[in-house]
Amino acid sequence: MTDKFDDLRHELAVANRILAHEGVIDAFGHLSVRHPDNPERYFLSRSRSPELVEPDDILEFDLDSQPVKPATVQLYAERVIHGEIFKARPDVVAVCHHHAPAVMPFCISGDPIVPVFHLGASMGAVAPFWDSRDEFGDTNLLVVKSAEGASLARALGKHSLVLMRRHGATVVGLSLRELVFRSIYSCDNARYLSEAKRLGNFSPLTPGEIEVAQAIYQLPNAQSRAWEYWETRLAKHGGLPAPLTQLASTAHLSLPRPPPQPSPASRGLKGGGRGRVGGGVARPARTADKNTATKKAAAKKAATPKGGKRK
Amino acid sequence: MTDKFDDLRHELAVANRILAHEGVIDAFGHLSVRHPDNPERYFLSRSRSPELVEPDDILEFDLDSQPVKPATVQLYAERVIHGEIFKARPDVVAVCHHHAPAVMPFCISGDPIVPVFHLGASMGAVAPFWDSRDEFGDTNLLVVKSAEGASLARALGKHSLVLMRRHGATVVGLSLRELVFRSIYSCDNARYLSEAKRLGNFSPLTPGEIEVAQAIYQLPNAQSRAWEYWETRLAKHGGLPAPLTQLASTAHLSLPRPPPQPSPASRGLKGGGRGRVGGGVARPARTADKNTATKKAAAKKAATPKGGKRK
Amino acid sequence: MTDKFDDLRHELAVANRILAHEGVIDAFGHLSVRHPDNPERYFLSRSRSPELVEPDDILEFDLDSQPVKPATVQLYAERVIHGEIFKARPDVVAVCHHHAPAVMPFCISGDPIVPVFHLGASMGAVAPFWDSRDEFGDTNLLVVKSAEGASLARALGKHSLVLMRRHGATVVGLSLRELVFRSIYSCDNARYLSEAKRLGNFSPLTPGEIEVAQAIYQLPNAQSRAWEYWETRLAKHGGLPAPLTQLASTAHLSLPRPPPQPSPASRGLKGGGRGRVGGGVARPARTADKNTATKKAAAKKAATPKGGKRK
Amino acid sequence: MTDKFDDLRHELAVANRILAHEGVIDAFGHLSVRHPDNPERYFLSRSRSPELVEPDDILEFDLDSQPVKPATVQLYAERVIHGEIFKARPDVVAVCHHHAPAVMPFCISGDPIVPVFHLGASMGAVAPFWDSRDEFGDTNLLVVKSAEGASLARALGKHSLVLMRRHGATVVGLSLRELVFRSIYSCDNARYLSEAKRLGNFSPLTPGEIEVAQAIYQLPNAQSRAWEYWETRLAKHGGLPAPLTQLASTAHLSLPRPPPQPSPASRGLKGGGRGRVGGGVARPARTADKNTATKKAAAKKAATPKGGKRK
Repeated sequence: MTDKFDDLRHELAVANRILAHEGVIDAFGHLSVRHPDNPERYFLSRSRSPELVEPDDILEFDLDSQPVKPATVQLYAERVIHGEIFKARPDVVAVCHHHAPAVMPFCISGDPIVPVFHLGASMGAVAPFWDSRDEFGDTNLLVVKSAEGASLARALGKHSLVLMRRHGATVVGLSLRELVFRSIYSCDNARYLSEAKRLGNFSPLTPGEIEVAQAIYQLPNAQSRAWEYWETRLAKHGGLPAPLTQLASTAHLSLPRPPPQPSPASRGLKGGGRGRVGGGVARPARTADKNTATKKAAAKKAATPKGGKRK
Repeated sequence: MTDKFDDLRHELAVANRILAHEGVIDAFGHLSVRHPDNPERYFLSRSRSPELVEPDDILEFDLDSQPVKPATVQLYAERVIHGEIFKARPDVVAVCHHHAPAVMPFCISGDPIVPVFHLGASMGAVAPFWDSRDEFGDTNLLVVKSAEGASLARALGKHSLVLMRRHGATVVGLSLRELVFRSIYSCDNARYLSEAKRLGNFSPLTPGEIEVAQAIYQLPNAQSRAWEYWETRLAKHGGLPAPLTQLASTAHLSLPRPPPQPSPASRGLKGGGRGRVGGGVARPARTADKNTATKKAAAKKAATPKGGKRK
Repeated sequence: MTDKFDDLRHELAVANRILAHEGVIDAFGHLSVRHPDNPERYFLSRSRSPELVEPDDILEFDLDSQPVKPATVQLYAERVIHGEIFKARPDVVAVCHHHAPAVMPFCISGDPIVPVFHLGASMGAVAPFWDSRDEFGDTNLLVVKSAEGASLARALGKHSLVLMRRHGATVVGLSLRELVFRSIYSCDNARYLSEAKRLGNFSPLTPGEIEVAQAIYQLPNAQSRAWEYWETRLAKHGGLPAPLTQLASTAHLSLPRPPPQPSPASRGLKGGGRGRVGGGVARPARTADKNTATKKAAAKKAATPKGGKRK
Repeated sequence: MTDKFDDLRHELAVANRILAHEGVIDAFGHLSVRHPDNPERYFLSRSRSPELVEPDDILEFDLDSQPVKPATVQLYAERVIHGEIFKARPDVVAVCHHHAPAVMPFCISGDPIVPVFHLGASMGAVAPFWDSRDEFGDTNLLVVKSAEGASLARALGKHSLVLMRRHGATVVGLSLRELVFRSIYSCDNARYLSEAKRLGNFSPLTPGEIEVAQAIYQLPNAQSRAWEYWETRLAKHGGLPAPLTQLASTAHLSLPRPPPQPSPASRGLKGGGRGRVGGGVARPARTADKNTATKKAAAKKAATPKGGKRK
């Protein structure tokens, strides 16, 4: 779909792929962003591995986690995590659920994760621990019912990171980029903490240090520097999403996706740029309702050299 | 060979390469799939590192692990693992034997692997431990005799994963994709368990949780999402197998293979696609019995752009 | 800027990227080199992740860490680390501040890092430990004031590496290449030490061994062999910086940078070489004061094949 | 040089690069092979990181580790390791000295490495431990004198792997491929052992198991399968050496090497193949004594497609 949320969908797709590329999420895990104009809505991909999410995959949901337009594609089973947290936390703009290797040992052992270095303070002072068994007994551990999502949101409380026993973690942010920053550095923090515990003694940051250090990523050159770094790394591996070139309705067709993209190196070689290979042009047109003007705009967009896109 | 099992051989080659790319198998290890029409047969590659297996390498074996057609190529010494498990377990459709770094410390220490997170439950509740020394005394630890394979199959019993002391592991699945899913996530489970044990206390999933969580990968969007993810990662690294373009008899010639494939980046650059470089076209024709129609179909297949192949 | 410091800026950019590629620095961290003609000045990049630093990004600072020419680009908040160490240590030619995963567990636990293998002796016999809390109480742990930088420089003393509690490390060298060598091998040393401690007993090098082994990197073929290795690895991943093609003033414009560079593979394919894509040509001309001769020289330089550049 | 040892030099260069690519050696470390016709000679690269070694870099040495033809290039300081072991062990055909991260914690702690899995048995039953301090007191730990090399050779004795305290390891083989196999799998063995020790109890292979399992790599399809795997992985990363195209004398000129090679992807794209970029053609001719016939043969060789080279 080509509308005023194109950039937001593109950025959310990039964020998905950054977290995959940096080892926070693998085949599973997902991240969402609240609708900028309507706090009762949020954007989230259809069910797909984050590394593969395209802007076209991103759908709009209400806070009961129902798609705003009827969808025939598969949806994430655990999207109530997003809806219930957006309900409970009006301040939250973005949510990520993951099973990062860095946090799993803590989710399994029950050991607390505490901030142990300056950038790790971005997780906040405390990461609450939620055990689905307490309220819901034996389940498959997935958070699929509204009641489960609401329970998780209560456990999260006013914090930024909640650990989910034998399952993973959920992170929130006041912006999408804050969320990405916090997700990555809270994983680093967990890794360093785990190693430090084995070396011997360790002491976390003081409450005073946490309070000021958790704001580091709000410094003008911290978040943008990190984002540029992660996005460049992603681009070097050919991991950028395709540009938006399809109308909204395509997301509602459960047609087969094109196969795995060619290797990064071949993408930029054929004149038309990224759009040619990974994006819309190679796919058969799937909708009849495109008007010619839109088509031309999309084609023009696809041909824009990489350099012309960033803000 | 170009016959009705082309797709199966292609998928088995992809599965080999996925497990290599995800770090489950290295130079050694192998995986098989039962013949879909004849339960007394199974498909397995000639002796070759899984990362290199091409559809053309895959041969048909009977349950005594003898090749159905006389083969002059080298065969895996340990193929009785597959044959004996297919005999003992009529429900099993696919078998993988590996020496993943994630499980080796458990195979050496004898510590049990238990499921500690939701996706790890795909291993089942129990992973039995088989020590070749118990029945066979001092060997080179390879499972090469029928009696050894049968002993291993007995140890596996009704379970999905059996650890082999000082050697590795064998995993089974009710489908090839289930097998791949279980192989990868049981390795993740072993890694997280190992780390959690060092942090301090840990508790496995409850029996009730295991029972429901081990079925997660059967959810409609779990297995296909993960497969798409792994296959895309493989494709990004230029790791997809060449398309099938040779007749059956080629697999029985012990001709030298073409040398290492060029780097992924150069593969897609020369018009004809993958087949040109890694696959059949660059190899000299090795059989005289191709008819022209088959040849044309194969050529056409090789020239299909990557986007047109997946189901 | 094209002047007599072109090579130095190119080498500093390469050093930045080597340390990023070898896992010493990530989104954050920075390294500087003293002005070869004026000991009261040093060169350091504008605020940017080291993996992305281009020669054009490198600015000149005085020892109070103020840019020599007014800059409108973002500057590293912690550049006083460099200025204060250059003040306190006239012998030091290059400084690196990093948060390498290898040292963080020691920075958190307070365990000392001691040299445990021959190349690790490049760190020197002792790595002092600096805790910002001792003098400055609760801060966000960044070293942003002159007094903080001076305190760190005092803790460093005559040594080559200082650990910064809950933050990272700072390393110094008598040359840029010595700095890179020491930064990389002191991280290896920390990793091996950490593992050795878990295996059981360990003993560091003797004082006599350290004294002679710390000079290994000064052997004629040690430092150059290592540098060639790291630079080649970097080049293989498409990580070399773009050649210098802009006049000095460009660094003072806070124009948006071009987006992430295309993958390495595509860089060399379009005739003009690296400069076409990552460097100056793709960017709009940003200065009016280029004279034609400079322009031609720059263009000629950009077109030089990779092979023609190294000394 | 183009002579009857071309293939041997090519294979030794490949072996160097395989061990670098598989993480056994980094900037330092080296490996040699005995002269097939003259047991008093061996081949070893000039001083260069193994990942970069070209066939042209490989020189001939006598057992006192002096180059057979006067060399003006830098030589490895520690080549006496090779010469003294070839003297003391007439059965040995190939020698590798490395500082692999997998063995360093054992070299530092003094913990013994014992074989704990079937492929790990390739290290043999015992890995002796050599401490340079015992005979030579405080040194920089490099093995640079004949007496030091001879002492190390005595410690090695009849075994296949000797650990060098606070330094690294030296491995020997009855063939170059056996050496590569043993180097890689003894590192895997060390990693698994280290992890197993942390999990709890562990028991090594029995003497009977070791005796038969250490011969696994001599099975017809074990060594060749592994070599094909490692060489393919190397090729995929653009890591194969350039073909031999220079006469012998070039190795004796200490001319600057060409700069880092372009990224793998671009290597195969320009018609002439690998030789064009990384090898001889791009370099200025450095010798006057080439005759035209040799030149043509070399050029023809450089143009051979990758597929035509392997045996």
